[in-house]
Amino acid sequence: MGRAGLIVIDMLNTYEHDDAEALVASVRTALPGVTALLERARAAGAPVVYVNDNFGRWRSHHGEILQTALSGPRADLVEPIAPDEESLFVVKARHSVFYETPLAYLLKQLDVRRVVLCGQVTEQCVLYSALDAHIRHLDVVVATDAVAHIDTELADAALRMMERNMAAELRLSGDISFQEARSA
Amino acid sequence: MGRAGLIVIDMLNTYEHDDAEALVASVRTALPGVTALLERARAAGAPVVYVNDNFGRWRSHHGEILQTALSGPRADLVEPIAPDEESLFVVKARHSVFYETPLAYLLKQLDVRRVVLCGQVTEQCVLYSALDAHIRHLDVVVATDAVAHIDTELADAALRMMERNMAAELRLSGDISFQEARSA
Amino acid sequence: MGRAGLIVIDMLNTYEHDDAEALVASVRTALPGVTALLERARAAGAPVVYVNDNFGRWRSHHGEILQTALSGPRADLVEPIAPDEESLFVVKARHSVFYETPLAYLLKQLDVRRVVLCGQVTEQCVLYSALDAHIRHLDVVVATDAVAHIDTELADAALRMMERNMAAELRLSGDISFQEARSA
Amino acid sequence: MGRAGLIVIDMLNTYEHDDAEALVASVRTALPGVTALLERARAAGAPVVYVNDNFGRWRSHHGEILQTALSGPRADLVEPIAPDEESLFVVKARHSVFYETPLAYLLKQLDVRRVVLCGQVTEQCVLYSALDAHIRHLDVVVATDAVAHIDTELADAALRMMERNMAAELRLSGDISFQEARSA
Repeated sequence: MGRAGLIVIDMLNTYEHDDAEALVASVRTALPGVTALLERARAAGAPVVYVNDNFGRWRSHHGEILQTALSGPRADLVEPIAPDEESLFVVKARHSVFYETPLAYLLKQLDVRRVVLCGQVTEQCVLYSALDAHIRHLDVVVATDAVAHIDTELADAALRMMERNMAAELRLSGDISFQEARSA
Repeated sequence: MGRAGLIVIDMLNTYEHDDAEALVASVRTALPGVTALLERARAAGAPVVYVNDNFGRWRSHHGEILQTALSGPRADLVEPIAPDEESLFVVKARHSVFYETPLAYLLKQLDVRRVVLCGQVTEQCVLYSALDAHIRHLDVVVATDAVAHIDTELADAALRMMERNMAAELRLSGDISFQEARSA
Repeated sequence: MGRAGLIVIDMLNTYEHDDAEALVASVRTALPGVTALLERARAAGAPVVYVNDNFGRWRSHHGEILQTALSGPRADLVEPIAPDEESLFVVKARHSVFYETPLAYLLKQLDVRRVVLCGQVTEQCVLYSALDAHIRHLDVVVATDAVAHIDTELADAALRMMERNMAAELRLSGDISFQEARSA
Repeated sequence: MGRAGLIVIDMLNTYEHDDAEALVASVRTALPGVTALLERARAAGAPVVYVNDNFGRWRSHHGEILQTALSGPRADLVEPIAPDEESLFVVKARHSVFYETPLAYLLKQLDVRRVVLCGQVTEQCVLYSALDAHIRHLDVVVATDAVAHIDTELADAALRMMERNMAAELRLSGDISFQEARSA
């Protein structure tokens, strides 16, 4: 039947781009949800995959990207969700976590059929990733209290689009069980 | 520099699916915009490409799909925008006009770098197609009075997403010149 | 478990392109294999999908492409393998039958997990299609007496590549049972 | 017009897989060609992109993959072609360097229109990568003395396929000028 995996989108960020200010406030609100999901997924032995932009640094690896983010002014938004020794990594160019990345291949290898999405930005990469997961016949869960946005109205619309048109389940992080998903 | 092409999305429709009622009213409103774009594009000699679902009828060709749509209860929504002898056709499965279709290849052959999107559904296929066009480095124009929606609020949000996050120009059909685009 | 489907590659052809002469002789040899596969697949109720170039005629549908091929000087190579009323069609741009076509989507809908490839050209589209099917986790069977080539040595190498590096089974058409495949 | 880039395929290898023995001999022969290309590309300021399997180690980054390869029994095949401080990296899953990787996006950003391919395995990943580059409208050069194979006959056939059917130029590394390509 396949199992569930947690996809952590673009959370290794220095927050120095445009729109960062609005985003930072929302990320602060979403952090407890993301950390709760990380704990639950790790406790259940479910795969955790960080998918992240590399900010055009095609030489840097995830350790360096993490260090850059931790050295920045917003280390408090990065430290709580930092990858552990078991975390997996996929670099994306931009847009969806699936577009021109090996994520679909990795999930197939891990027998993951159900992806739990958290991270940023709700009305951008999270939305595009939900669409691409749905097109690829994966079940999609979006943790509504663990995603961060820039524009509140667009984010609300994005969540409704995911639920209505991409068959995504919208759930609070506290209601997402990776065990349940695994046995489903 | 490349030229402009008109993409007519899913307008060959029998309107017998769920959500058809809300859609029909919006299509009626969008019809004059679509017909105006067809006239302008044809007058300018710009390529017109109909990209359409085949409703799972993998034996049917576009002529049959057109006949089916013209034989249905909503022929009045199909007749005004029926393809002419020069129109091109691409069948899509579902979702975006680019996903697993030869549209990108066809546009490359035609030297089209700027796509004008019209048709349905604003907050679904039009939105996904704008994203996929932007990812593929095409310039995107959305004719705001020539797209039809099911959910007004989601459609408005979709248009804002396209403008804000996918670099799409939102224009009225009367302000879209295929000549201008060609020389750009 | 999924079932088997027959993929007929580029057999609707006018044989007027470069290299046609070498190809024609090989197609003549492959014709009995293709017709045998068509009979077996049809008798077993297995899906038969013709995937064909449209020669840049983006207005033409498969009926017109068939008529063009039947009106040409090589109608004898087309008539025996002409599609019947149940055959399905997918237009491809060029290259593989999967690249920027909805074939993967169609096969998923049909629950086809095992594709039997026949047609032309062994060392080109058949090879690329076997690779793309393998990448997409489909089982691949190549009917060695039902594929046609331009260059004998490259075709032999292509068949060995498919077997060795793409996990393809090489079989004679007489040894391919669509019933067997369906129950597998 | 775009410029040329050097793509180094799967050269960070521990050579512990099946077929490694045949491959090792061929890699030894190809090494001078690869190092010559690296020197020329670096001297010309052309981008050098290493595209490499990660052997299923989705936690490891390129530095670790390099260390693993340098710690293995075949360090002599890795040390001469080790990346320098300017080298770029893309991780691939398997198959082509383009399939589900961000390489096309990276090349677009770098304005690279002409890719020079070297590395391994001629009749597998090099062949598939040439096909995918050709499909994506990139010019392809294969450095015939800087690619390594497992099966001599299949490798020869693969090179002929690339030249004949994928519009690839076959050249000796000594005849490939990145300056020339840049100004082309």
